[in-house]
Amino acid sequence: MEFFPSLLENLIDKFATLPGIGRKTAQRLAFYIIALPDEDAISFSDAVKEAKQGVKCCTVCLNLTDSDLCSVCRDTRRNTKLVCVVPSPKEVLAIERSHEFDGVYHVLHGVISPIGNIGPDDIKVKELITRVSDGEIDEVIMATNPDTEGETTARYISRLLQPFEVKVTRLAYGIPVGGNLEFVDDATLMRALEGRLEM
Amino acid sequence: MEFFPSLLENLIDKFATLPGIGRKTAQRLAFYIIALPDEDAISFSDAVKEAKQGVKCCTVCLNLTDSDLCSVCRDTRRNTKLVCVVPSPKEVLAIERSHEFDGVYHVLHGVISPIGNIGPDDIKVKELITRVSDGEIDEVIMATNPDTEGETTARYISRLLQPFEVKVTRLAYGIPVGGNLEFVDDATLMRALEGRLEM
Repeated sequence: MEFFPSLLENLIDKFATLPGIGRKTAQRLAFYIIALPDEDAISFSDAVKEAKQGVKCCTVCLNLTDSDLCSVCRDTRRNTKLVCVVPSPKEVLAIERSHEFDGVYHVLHGVISPIGNIGPDDIKVKELITRVSDGEIDEVIMATNPDTEGETTARYISRLLQPFEVKVTRLAYGIPVGGNLEFVDDATLMRALEGRLEM
Repeated sequence: MEFFPSLLENLIDKFATLPGIGRKTAQRLAFYIIALPDEDAISFSDAVKEAKQGVKCCTVCLNLTDSDLCSVCRDTRRNTKLVCVVPSPKEVLAIERSHEFDGVYHVLHGVISPIGNIGPDDIKVKELITRVSDGEIDEVIMATNPDTEGETTARYISRLLQPFEVKVTRLAYGIPVGGNLEFVDDATLMRALEGRLEM
């Protein structure tokens, strides 16, 4: 691959380190950058630097923000006694999009994963405990993903929260709205039966 | 989508402008950048800027380079009387990889495309004619892609080269090596028959 000029090779290498970007795609992206008008390429470069330098974690909930508090924590109409625990800022986005939740968040920045060598100390559990021990919180909703790692994390945290006077809940499992019973997997069907509600 | 900090939104927008990168992928890439160590993110940003600013066209063949001449034109062992005309630097790479060609290149930076509104003046045809009219070239090989636009471009250029004492050839069409006759399309099979060689 020594046929391209080294600066171009370097850019291809950088693109190829991004997740899901193979060598061919990296090449296409690098060629696209080279062909951009000067100001567009510079503004792309600046966007990378500025996002990396300017985006930090909210001092309260650890959601991403470019000031001290994130947009949710800044919003005085939110119910700060209700905390939804999510693995990453992406889940904040998903829940906010539903416009159904008026509480605040706590972003763990990861889930406990023995295979991935991620222990409880590698994610933001301690910060949650500190927040709860300050005593202003009524309910903690565990909104981790319905997989082994998500469940492990939720169970671990709920055990840690037992000493405090706080209700710990988790999202309901069941048939997705608009789903088809015929195509729902067995585990989900079992959970939906277990969690059945009176009509 | 106003839930992310604006600097992050901005980076997602920039990634989403890249070819083949949708909104979801752009989000994943931006989150990856945010989570990188500082120096890695900065070096990614610098790579974009440096490649854009440092990579230019070879003064002889218009291939990409970071000095005046590209690596092929710098190589004194190459046969400068044999010029292979390619649509873009990617084809230079493909041909160089075969290690079968010892001539030099001319990069058109595009092909004539009436649908894409790209005429002969939008690609580097004039530079090729100037090069040929200087009279040091014995043969020009048209190595455009075997599609309508590639053929149109090749035919247009070969017509322009008629007044000069230069042999104009094009790559052979036929069955790809390792291909299966059963799965070869009709057009290719027809071309392979037309171009049949004595054994």
